[in-house]
Amino acid sequence: MNVVLSRDSQVRAMENTVTNAERYFGQFCSLLASYTRKTARLRDKADQLVKQLMDFANTENPELRATMKDFAEDLAKVQDYRQAEVERLEAKVISPLKLYGAQIKQTRADIKKCKRVQNNEIKQLEKLEKLRQKSPSDRQMISQAETSAQRASVDTNRSTHHLAETVDAFQEQKLKDLRRIFSDFVTIEMVFHAKAVEVYSSAFRTLESYDLERDLQDFRAKMHGTYGHSEARPLTDTSPSLSVPWPLASQSVPSTTAHQGKDEEESEADSVEEIPLEDLKGQQQGRRD
Amino acid sequence: MNVVLSRDSQVRAMENTVTNAERYFGQFCSLLASYTRKTARLRDKADQLVKQLMDFANTENPELRATMKDFAEDLAKVQDYRQAEVERLEAKVISPLKLYGAQIKQTRADIKKCKRVQNNEIKQLEKLEKLRQKSPSDRQMISQAETSAQRASVDTNRSTHHLAETVDAFQEQKLKDLRRIFSDFVTIEMVFHAKAVEVYSSAFRTLESYDLERDLQDFRAKMHGTYGHSEARPLTDTSPSLSVPWPLASQSVPSTTAHQGKDEEESEADSVEEIPLEDLKGQQQGRRD
Repeated sequence: MNVVLSRDSQVRAMENTVTNAERYFGQFCSLLASYTRKTARLRDKADQLVKQLMDFANTENPELRATMKDFAEDLAKVQDYRQAEVERLEAKVISPLKLYGAQIKQTRADIKKCKRVQNNEIKQLEKLEKLRQKSPSDRQMISQAETSAQRASVDTNRSTHHLAETVDAFQEQKLKDLRRIFSDFVTIEMVFHAKAVEVYSSAFRTLESYDLERDLQDFRAKMHGTYGHSEARPLTDTSPSLSVPWPLASQSVPSTTAHQGKDEEESEADSVEEIPLEDLKGQQQGRRD
Repeated sequence: MNVVLSRDSQVRAMENTVTNAERYFGQFCSLLASYTRKTARLRDKADQLVKQLMDFANTENPELRATMKDFAEDLAKVQDYRQAEVERLEAKVISPLKLYGAQIKQTRADIKKCKRVQNNEIKQLEKLEKLRQKSPSDRQMISQAETSAQRASVDTNRSTHHLAETVDAFQEQKLKDLRRIFSDFVTIEMVFHAKAVEVYSSAFRTLESYDLERDLQDFRAKMHGTYGHSEARPLTDTSPSLSVPWPLASQSVPSTTAHQGKDEEESEADSVEEIPLEDLKGQQQGRRD
């Protein structure tokens, strides 16, 4: 096998190693950054739910209020852990993967330099060959060209050797980083999920211990309080009052009715029904079975 | 307290109960549907990562290939559990919350009907009052109006009583559903997170057992195989071959160089660096401290 061809295929193999690393590490980096962003969005959505649960709790009776607040606080805790997950993924997974961009650029520059040196050797050898064919008797010129070709060959050997060492170190670093980065990824995820299990267990107990009967009694007491002594009585009992001049109650009644207008009613009812669950179903299509 | 005013405030209290439920259940439904969609997107992104890990595994030496495939399979398993989470959230959390739309509409219609009956009573009472002032001597007219007002009052009492029962049942159902839906939410999340911990523990062991040294030896053997006998030798050893006519190696070299063009190099390097992590940071701003 010709030594120049051998060196060429050697450089090509090294180039493939770097190109491959570049391609896949780039993909890993971009996908994991996107995964982290989507995790952040999930956290944002859950934070909104926490807020609504808190608001809702404040409109309810003490029993349900306490339960809902505890539950919302647990849900908020999970989001705090999710936030820690996001920050750790950024620092220990995405940042190191991003550093690969710089490292790969440097190795690529080394390969380019090595190729330039290789090409120079080829040029010198071609020049020498031409001289030998055109002026086989010009010993001085041929001797000069031989010296140049020899020098170029020494340069190529040195450069290829240096590149082999660089790529070897690059590969070793790549394997170490790969193991470390994905181990960190798994650890970060594992810690988050373990914390979530812990917090949700507490949330489950909170919901289990909610005393619905007591809450319902509160509600009934409150409704009766609002009714005053308004046990549904037949009109005959109250008919004497009819002879008393009717106060201007009618003025206050329509204003209440107007406040609970039809538009408001309908738009709220719609908001419950307009949830675009179709989107979700669409996303599930094409899922592997 | 006037009985008509009392009935009015009773209906208003019931209306508030329903309006409140409508508002918050609508919010819970829409936020949880969005939470579920975002979970589905996270699953999609992780599925893409699984695919890339598999592709990458196939380009590597046996040791890393096996490790990466095992890791990718574990990551895929987590996504299968996430898919189950999405389906369960849809069936046991979002669907029941959506059913509230219909239930609330029915209760709202009952309230409207009750208000119409109340307004009719008020109208009859006003009519009666006017008659008493304008034609206090027209006993027959007054007597008729009194009968109408009495009938209207009986209707209102019956309707208000019926509404109180409806709203009581509505509230009981609301509390039961609330507890069940959020308990289901917590259970679904808990099961998912527990499964994720389990699978990631296995993934962690996979990565821990990866034999990096063996892999590196494979790499070196492969590189040396590619080099052939190309231990970096000084040119003096090979110089005799220089006198042999130089083959047309220069023709094959440029074609390889052209394949690894500059554009391809730069666009791949860019893809590693262009990860828009700023988005992620932006999302984290405004996060509670």
